[in-house]
Amino acid sequence: MVSIKLVLEYDGTDFSGWQYQKNGRSVQEELERAIHKILQCDIRVAGGGRTDAGVHAHGQVASFQSEQEIDIILFKKGINAVLPEDIVLRDVQVMPQEFHARYSAKARKYRYIIHKEPTALQRKYCWQFYQDLDIIILKECSKMIIGEHEFQSFCKSGSTVKDYVCNVSTAVWNQDGHVLTFTIISNRFLYGMVRALVGTMVNAGRGYQTIENFREILESKSRANAGMAAPAHGLVLEEIVY
Amino acid sequence: MVSIKLVLEYDGTDFSGWQYQKNGRSVQEELERAIHKILQCDIRVAGGGRTDAGVHAHGQVASFQSEQEIDIILFKKGINAVLPEDIVLRDVQVMPQEFHARYSAKARKYRYIIHKEPTALQRKYCWQFYQDLDIIILKECSKMIIGEHEFQSFCKSGSTVKDYVCNVSTAVWNQDGHVLTFTIISNRFLYGMVRALVGTMVNAGRGYQTIENFREILESKSRANAGMAAPAHGLVLEEIVY
Repeated sequence: MVSIKLVLEYDGTDFSGWQYQKNGRSVQEELERAIHKILQCDIRVAGGGRTDAGVHAHGQVASFQSEQEIDIILFKKGINAVLPEDIVLRDVQVMPQEFHARYSAKARKYRYIIHKEPTALQRKYCWQFYQDLDIIILKECSKMIIGEHEFQSFCKSGSTVKDYVCNVSTAVWNQDGHVLTFTIISNRFLYGMVRALVGTMVNAGRGYQTIENFREILESKSRANAGMAAPAHGLVLEEIVY
Repeated sequence: MVSIKLVLEYDGTDFSGWQYQKNGRSVQEELERAIHKILQCDIRVAGGGRTDAGVHAHGQVASFQSEQEIDIILFKKGINAVLPEDIVLRDVQVMPQEFHARYSAKARKYRYIIHKEPTALQRKYCWQFYQDLDIIILKECSKMIIGEHEFQSFCKSGSTVKDYVCNVSTAVWNQDGHVLTFTIISNRFLYGMVRALVGTMVNAGRGYQTIENFREILESKSRANAGMAAPAHGLVLEEIVY
């Protein structure tokens, strides 16, 4: 028995998210269907990071246990031939049986992209936001979330988790022309966390709130205080680190 | 009377091309409709570079003559508010009356993008080509087209032009990981020229033909000798130089 690690890229535009659900097209379901076609057996895959409806992935990781010997080159070609064009299998690796896409993950890296000018070519992969945004304020806010914090304020309600502690190792805003990119790496992420963080930082960056307000929101541990979630299509799951 | 210069970005995916046509959605038609809504008058715009069905633009230029005084900031906002989301107006400038998007253009710059690995996020903006391609051969071919040549071999039939001479100032392939980019700048382009050039260079790069064959095709001045046109969705009109 081995574990098979899959690295996936997908365009979240036409998906209800990563996870299987009754009504709606999920990445997991499409992937499992493709594996069924190639291996001729029912497989349930585990996902390394759950992405919501509309969220993209460049480096999502999935895994499944296999007793079959798998020729990874043929497997990759076969899966890519049967997957719909908005999902691609970027890499396949045979791992020790213990490997699990979710439980073995040490950290996840997400990227959120904002375009300050209208764009047609990138419109499905960014938040087009035309109000003035103060990059200095965004940077100040992002510094506050680095380290170990309880992130209740940025966790979508309806989520059932034992605790809200995340250890954020990187949280940084960069500007390149009219493109702003927020990169965040954390050992774990709560439900809706990156989009709530971005929405709330943007409220400070546009002057609706102060940097001090941002700190209060973080410390208040109440989702009601945070800003609106930033739109899903600006978010990409970049990488999962093991 | 002044001339208004518009710089446009569009996603060619759902267009039958730049130019107005009876059956099919054109960028020109959508733009003219938007201008009509904002200025309340019928305008015919001239395009700086004609893009075929499926070809994208980052820096297409259009122009029209206007007797109205135009507040370019309001005009830009208004046009972007009424344009469909796959076209954006990036910039507006008031120019002397003589300015004409097509006739005043000194050069056009196109980019053709090939991905050597499958991609979901970029699939609409590149040619996914998985066979081995020798970048050295591609570079050698591209060097041959620099300078003044008659490009009949790379001109789609049905085109009526007086002569086929183009003066190519830049023609270069670059590789960044599994992404190959061909950049070409020329005073003019014939119908279907970039895609025919790319298709034919790729035939050499994949080993179907030699560099010497490529030279013969260029010198033969017959379209029948060149390779298949590369797919439209890998091509972007980057910029028009005045």
